Amino acid sequence: MISYICLVGWFTVQTMTMNMTRPTLLLDSYQCRRNLSHMVSKARQHNLVFRPHFKTHQSVKIGRWFREEGIEKITVSSVEMAQYFARDGWRDITIAFPLNINEISSVNELAGGVDLHLTVLNKESVEALNHSLQHSVGVFIKIDTGAKRTGIPYHQTEEIAGLKQQIERSPVLHLEGLLTHAGHTYKAGSRDEIIQIHKETRDRLVRLRQHIQREGEELLISVGDTPSSALAEEFENIDEIRPGNFIFYDLQQYHLNACSINDIAVALACPVVARHKERGQIIVYGGAVHLSKDTFLEGSSRVYGYGVIINEKGWIVPEEKIIVSGLSQEHGILNVSPYMLKRIVIGDFIGILPAHSCLTANMMGGYADVEGNVYDHLSG
Amino acid sequence: MISYICLVGWFTVQTMTMNMTRPTLLLDSYQCRRNLSHMVSKARQHNLVFRPHFKTHQSVKIGRWFREEGIEKITVSSVEMAQYFARDGWRDITIAFPLNINEISSVNELAGGVDLHLTVLNKESVEALNHSLQHSVGVFIKIDTGAKRTGIPYHQTEEIAGLKQQIERSPVLHLEGLLTHAGHTYKAGSRDEIIQIHKETRDRLVRLRQHIQREGEELLISVGDTPSSALAEEFENIDEIRPGNFIFYDLQQYHLNACSINDIAVALACPVVARHKERGQIIVYGGAVHLSKDTFLEGSSRVYGYGVIINEKGWIVPEEKIIVSGLSQEHGILNVSPYMLKRIVIGDFIGILPAHSCLTANMMGGYADVEGNVYDHLSG
Repeated sequence: MISYICLVGWFTVQTMTMNMTRPTLLLDSYQCRRNLSHMVSKARQHNLVFRPHFKTHQSVKIGRWFREEGIEKITVSSVEMAQYFARDGWRDITIAFPLNINEISSVNELAGGVDLHLTVLNKESVEALNHSLQHSVGVFIKIDTGAKRTGIPYHQTEEIAGLKQQIERSPVLHLEGLLTHAGHTYKAGSRDEIIQIHKETRDRLVRLRQHIQREGEELLISVGDTPSSALAEEFENIDEIRPGNFIFYDLQQYHLNACSINDIAVALACPVVARHKERGQIIVYGGAVHLSKDTFLEGSSRVYGYGVIINEKGWIVPEEKIIVSGLSQEHGILNVSPYMLKRIVIGDFIGILPAHSCLTANMMGGYADVEGNVYDHLSG
Repeated sequence: MISYICLVGWFTVQTMTMNMTRPTLLLDSYQCRRNLSHMVSKARQHNLVFRPHFKTHQSVKIGRWFREEGIEKITVSSVEMAQYFARDGWRDITIAFPLNINEISSVNELAGGVDLHLTVLNKESVEALNHSLQHSVGVFIKIDTGAKRTGIPYHQTEEIAGLKQQIERSPVLHLEGLLTHAGHTYKAGSRDEIIQIHKETRDRLVRLRQHIQREGEELLISVGDTPSSALAEEFENIDEIRPGNFIFYDLQQYHLNACSINDIAVALACPVVARHKERGQIIVYGGAVHLSKDTFLEGSSRVYGYGVIINEKGWIVPEEKIIVSGLSQEHGILNVSPYMLKRIVIGDFIGILPAHSCLTANMMGGYADVEGNVYDHLSG
């Protein structure tokens, strides 16, 4: 499919041997594997079970890199995603999204073939599982340690203990532990604040476990966001981490100090379709249906952007930082200096680092690396 | 596929005979056809060529409703979309997106089978077409009448006249007219402002045409946004309209006064997965990968939202207006009163009117109507 050499103008990756004609999500496979190996080492060093979240890449082919690193346990965010990876031989899968009881027959089918772990936070889910499951599954109680999205608030110990008892009485469920996603790290203002949230999350879960755990029982503690997993260095009492975004990183992570700009391993290549000298803008074929409408907050200038341009010398942000300042369905708008406007010509491909790589990958439904290999995505 | 009766709790469409288990984009096919028939009548009444934009629905099956109304000319926003509809027998297609010269071989292939119209705004595109096209195509010069996205600014008459001459010298191109998208109507503060923009757009194009048109020449004027097409009543000197969104409408259009809330013809049905009494929120399975992260601006409260809940009596916004206030990859967050919190139970399906229906349809990749019929989408 990707066969012959094509110069891509301003965004020239020297080794690129691709025939790109449309917006294409480029993967820096070398950087992906570096990001992966770094996180694998970190988990090993802290004696943690590493159960990476596959919702970022959603790719069987990329998933195999994890397997080559010895990883056997994974996290997904939907039943469909669990099925997708089960078909590629993954046999130990946590669905880290509150159980959707409408999908219980698919859950049951899945549980017949893999070691399945579910996330529950209410009695209705346990009742539905008791009623319909024919295979045994593990469950984690979802705890809200401060993110205020889903999970029983950590301080509602009675409610948590009640749910625990209900699970223990179930003939098909076995309680495995407490699971949280400290998603409030994404709103943190600094590296220190992320580490603070991580510690607080850990302490809240540990105290909760002490409170509800019977003698001899060993409930696991599973945590998971990429900012904490990337920045924290203290994981005592934590059993498992589930970061996902780290495989690609993105501008949101960069502005959280969770990665360097060079760690970002995906870029959307977009053809230039218009140049507007009169207002210093170029327009690329690459809009909301390619990048997604998620934004990053450029800290110093308090400006929201959808992406940032990289230059032709590699995936480096040039001195003149060019931000994708506007997006409609298929158009991306870049403000550029007269100097850059002269260098960029119609038909060039411009490389854009995404604000949120999980969503960009989901929009694009596939990847290509600079060696010309293509990669699947569940949505493709 | 959709086979047996399933009660969908709070969001009960009485006649629904669907087996929904996951987020599903529901289509009110009756309302779609009403929206369509209304726009067809309006175009007819004003003696306009109606060339609807298919980028909103991107569906062969929905496209056939247009054909039943006698429509033969359509607009799309990508080469891929043109190919998709050409395969269903559409033979007169305008690609209303600046030509991406990297796709010229696909454009050429397409031009061999359909009456193709392209949008150009620079000499590079004309040169590329001259160099590679083996079939004749029509072209429109893209004019910017104030939206500041793409198009040559309407007052740069020399540049426009120069491009016109270049096109006239081409052996493969024939100039058809001036095309604009007055996208600044989407930022208008009132109905009057939209009508004002529409008139100004028309006047600018008419003056431009007078300036550059030779004697005997008849350049067409093609305009296209849904707010103008829905609200304006004066179309003198305009030849063609290309609205797209009107087939579904959405909350952005509603807040622009371009439609009533009852005109909105798509709703995302999302399963309830968590209830949070302590903070008055429910969480649905339906996030950025389903709704898209586009927002509407709730005028009175100046609050941005991702969607609005409809009630079980039909697609009506209940007295207690519930806004989707937060979205992550798969989660949607709704703030609800204690009264509503009691009525909504785990497993219910909640119907959500989208902020921007084009993007929601693109995310979902397909539709189902309440009679149980399913509909394709190019991205599905």
